[in-house]
Amino acid sequence: TLAIMYSITGEKPTQLEGPTIAEKDALLKRENGVTTSSPMRLRMEAFIKSQQKEIVAALEEVDGSKFTIDSWDRPEGGGGITCVLQDGNVFEKAGVNTSVVYGRLPRAAIAKMRVNHKALDPSVESIEFFAAGLSLVLHPKNPMAPTVHLNYRYFETADEFGNSSAWWYGGGCDLTPCYLFDEDAIHFHNSIKNACDKHDKAYYPRFKKWCDEYFSNKHRGESRGIGGIFFDDLDETEKDQEQLFSFVQDCLGAFLPSYLPIINRRKDMLFTEEQKQWQQLRRGRYVEFNLVHDRGTSFGLNTPGARVESILMSLPLTARWQYMHTPEVGSREERLLEVLKKPREWV
Amino acid sequence: TLAIMYSITGEKPTQLEGPTIAEKDALLKRENGVTTSSPMRLRMEAFIKSQQKEIVAALEEVDGSKFTIDSWDRPEGGGGITCVLQDGNVFEKAGVNTSVVYGRLPRAAIAKMRVNHKALDPSVESIEFFAAGLSLVLHPKNPMAPTVHLNYRYFETADEFGNSSAWWYGGGCDLTPCYLFDEDAIHFHNSIKNACDKHDKAYYPRFKKWCDEYFSNKHRGESRGIGGIFFDDLDETEKDQEQLFSFVQDCLGAFLPSYLPIINRRKDMLFTEEQKQWQQLRRGRYVEFNLVHDRGTSFGLNTPGARVESILMSLPLTARWQYMHTPEVGSREERLLEVLKKPREWV
Repeated sequence: TLAIMYSITGEKPTQLEGPTIAEKDALLKRENGVTTSSPMRLRMEAFIKSQQKEIVAALEEVDGSKFTIDSWDRPEGGGGITCVLQDGNVFEKAGVNTSVVYGRLPRAAIAKMRVNHKALDPSVESIEFFAAGLSLVLHPKNPMAPTVHLNYRYFETADEFGNSSAWWYGGGCDLTPCYLFDEDAIHFHNSIKNACDKHDKAYYPRFKKWCDEYFSNKHRGESRGIGGIFFDDLDETEKDQEQLFSFVQDCLGAFLPSYLPIINRRKDMLFTEEQKQWQQLRRGRYVEFNLVHDRGTSFGLNTPGARVESILMSLPLTARWQYMHTPEVGSREERLLEVLKKPREWV
Repeated sequence: TLAIMYSITGEKPTQLEGPTIAEKDALLKRENGVTTSSPMRLRMEAFIKSQQKEIVAALEEVDGSKFTIDSWDRPEGGGGITCVLQDGNVFEKAGVNTSVVYGRLPRAAIAKMRVNHKALDPSVESIEFFAAGLSLVLHPKNPMAPTVHLNYRYFETADEFGNSSAWWYGGGCDLTPCYLFDEDAIHFHNSIKNACDKHDKAYYPRFKKWCDEYFSNKHRGESRGIGGIFFDDLDETEKDQEQLFSFVQDCLGAFLPSYLPIINRRKDMLFTEEQKQWQQLRRGRYVEFNLVHDRGTSFGLNTPGARVESILMSLPLTARWQYMHTPEVGSREERLLEVLKKPREWV
């Protein structure tokens, strides 16, 4: 998730050799706007902001109510747009956030974000750093409609002269139903697979597996949901920057077509009080994953000065914990648990 | 909390020089029962089990409904009794657990439990280990009635010959109201202070401070509740074993008189829908502390084979997260937050 980015506090940059990338980018934007020859930082920022608008508009149409929009600036450069729809007609809680961060981080903190951090100079104390990402979580009211999570992000570090050094992409998208509809799972995975296949036939199987492994409530031996894709640290050792940007663009572009048919099919289905309660229990599992296992969330919450409300926007409006709840043998609830205990191939 | 104890998995003891403490204790119990000359392990076990019965009986009287009782055995020795009352008349969720564990743990794991671990032999790989404790969390339905948490525990390690080496006590008790009634806070702290003062006038101020520091949602700059006491690693450098046992007995004995008058005063108060929602938000904070900060819980959940349902019994039945919720200026909700941001002296 992007939680890590909300936690970068406003530590004042120490005196540098040259202009910071924040200063460079501000000048570039003023003079030239953003074009395909702009630095990737500005292109990624422009891309996620246009996607955010498109997604928010589409979800407002589905829900029939409006998002609240909070913009916040960071004094050191960058800022964020947090769009939240709470207690809507279709969504119990929906958050669509973009975040752009210019700052400095201790090397150890960056190494933590980047599993594969061989490009990070081990001799420097702190590193100038850029991050931009879009992150969304939608929790529908109807227990037949699945929760969905998406996050795509671009990171870059700069050397002491403000020149770009390391860069990488990360992200993914995954679905968390309370009731399993095979056609939904197949459609969701197919949409993502098609976006991946355009770039590399190995991507979908590789990133689908990564997703199953990452979004796992290990303490319960259960996946959080029925997966999707997840990847991190994709850099020049994978493909060139242009190709990876195009890949991330296609993944993000695949989101609305992957989710809208599902939410439209499920949002008005009839459900019982028991089914609503089962949803609440599954929401509890969602909270467990995000608070116990998600690296970004725990890193973020343990960093002084983090924007806690943006980090925890991923939590559902309501959740439930019941001691020793066990679904009935042969029930739909039991079938979901079986799939969560042993992730399936959907396409 | 005791979560740490539920997570000790059934790793088979390696061949030892002499009988294990589990074997010794089983024999002692069979031959002599438990008397004041029994090892502290057996006395603590007998004490917490009798307290559990007394507390469960008193709470059943308050609630008007019965606890469900789960007993579980550990093949290596020991076991637990989990008493749960869910969706009762007064309590949304109430858990009163005892747990007795005989096992072996890697030295590093024991060092983690014991901040002050100078007595642990650094040359051995794993250590035979005993733990007994009582742990309870009560979440009332009425938002005017506070949640309460208590945990008292005794740990002991043995050398390779099955002789007791290090031992220590830990525990505490703390109150988490959604609406602050000064008279409740004063009564609760007074009851605990009286139990402490009988043993050492320095205990209450010292352990009250420790409680405020430990039960803190650092990421929000808020205490979980209005405190109580918390201590850990109390061993022979503090006082002798007999004196500390007597201290822990008095603390546990003070629980019912500290809480019953409060729950009886609050359980039938009128409340509004908005007040119920505020309670749900505060429940969310409780979940945040337990899943993000509580050492025992995270240690437990990250240990393969842990009894997850016993660890997570401390979570409320229901909880809520609302983006950017801010209480009205001058409201009772705001006053609570002020006290949580700056812990007060109540007695």
